[in-house]
Amino acid sequence: MPRTLKLTISYQGTDYCGWQIQSNGPSIQALLESAFCAVINQNVPVVGSGRTDSGVHAIGQVASCTVETSIPNERLIMALNAHLPDDIRIHKIDDVPDDFHAIYWAKKKRYRYVWQDQRIGNVFRRSFTWHVFKPLDAESMHRAGQAFVGEHDFASFQAAGSERATTVRTVWELTVRRSTYFPNEVEMEIEANGFLYNMVRNIAGTLLEVGQGTQPEIWPVNVLAALDRKSAGMTAPPQGLFLVSVDYDV
Amino acid sequence: MPRTLKLTISYQGTDYCGWQIQSNGPSIQALLESAFCAVINQNVPVVGSGRTDSGVHAIGQVASCTVETSIPNERLIMALNAHLPDDIRIHKIDDVPDDFHAIYWAKKKRYRYVWQDQRIGNVFRRSFTWHVFKPLDAESMHRAGQAFVGEHDFASFQAAGSERATTVRTVWELTVRRSTYFPNEVEMEIEANGFLYNMVRNIAGTLLEVGQGTQPEIWPVNVLAALDRKSAGMTAPPQGLFLVSVDYDV
Repeated sequence: MPRTLKLTISYQGTDYCGWQIQSNGPSIQALLESAFCAVINQNVPVVGSGRTDSGVHAIGQVASCTVETSIPNERLIMALNAHLPDDIRIHKIDDVPDDFHAIYWAKKKRYRYVWQDQRIGNVFRRSFTWHVFKPLDAESMHRAGQAFVGEHDFASFQAAGSERATTVRTVWELTVRRSTYFPNEVEMEIEANGFLYNMVRNIAGTLLEVGQGTQPEIWPVNVLAALDRKSAGMTAPPQGLFLVSVDYDV
Repeated sequence: MPRTLKLTISYQGTDYCGWQIQSNGPSIQALLESAFCAVINQNVPVVGSGRTDSGVHAIGQVASCTVETSIPNERLIMALNAHLPDDIRIHKIDDVPDDFHAIYWAKKKRYRYVWQDQRIGNVFRRSFTWHVFKPLDAESMHRAGQAFVGEHDFASFQAAGSERATTVRTVWELTVRRSTYFPNEVEMEIEANGFLYNMVRNIAGTLLEVGQGTQPEIWPVNVLAALDRKSAGMTAPPQGLFLVSVDYDV
């Protein structure tokens, strides 16, 4: 009897073309499907909660798939991980209702964006941060970022050329603070009911300008109101971005 | 007029064949020498405080070289870094006496070894830790490790086939503790007047057996006394090892 599974997955995105199967390089999705093929000898399409771009990481990406196997979930995790490269790991497998879908059932998502602000980069953090030379004022960025909290039209923060039915999203939390462990790093955490394509990276590029003092703290309010991608800051590079978690009612 | 320089360098060793120039892949030393060639158009041999193997990292490796240039050190750092890949960074350049030598003048060295002990590996830490499945008792490892503190003959911890005039070294400090930031990681720090080839990795492989309970805490005392490499634990893999610092009187 077919079982629908919810997978919770972490990966370092550095060496991949992104989540989705593409012709220009290895993808997380393709490697997961290969692992299923190796372990249960079935062609199992895996649907992610959303695509992540090349270089973007995930601490808790969620994907769904349907399999026919009696292997218990704990053993399935170990077997699949043994067939995955060590920059991709399945942490959890749960049985969910047949009609579960990783995209449509998602209730909220949390992302993290990380900068390192110092003249000479930390070599161990180069794949996990956006290295900027000018110091960041994390408190100023935090205050400015509160403009995004609430229900807003994020049209100014959507990648040019994307088409979504609506550009309105609700941000429940946005926090910017200096890392306690890495004193030369600043972290942003943002939680919302959903994100437009490149929205977090465009918000990060916008808050950077406040953090470096090239724009005032009120600027994000004006950028939001403009409803125009060109009014916002640059798209922050992918390696600072982490998909932290995706929440569902199941 | 020639100037002798002391360079303080960090690097992630993952993608290198090690510190030293070799025919089987890119080395840190070769890339530093290429950067000098690009910046001051001179062939500048760079002497490291010691070799690090492929996969081993450095937070504060020290190297010496002799150059003929009037470029101030701060500008030289920026120019050299611009010609280095971003997993190698020069942090400091100091003028030192003509007869300074990074190997012979070294007074003490500090290394760190890092394990992650959990069933499913942290993908972001795989290049910086030895992933072991069985939990480690860090306190037991710390107590057992105190056997190494003091002046001892470390013949049991020298890589088979190495030849040094003496295998006696003085360890000033050895600390093992669970990381406060990464709760699934255990860190060893060890400081000595010098280290034999693979000595830290052989100590790490030995303390692992104590940490997993396959050997008693007294075991390192017996291994030291045996003066025989075969009596010790395995050589821990390179990616958990960091050269933290090298100290000199200058």
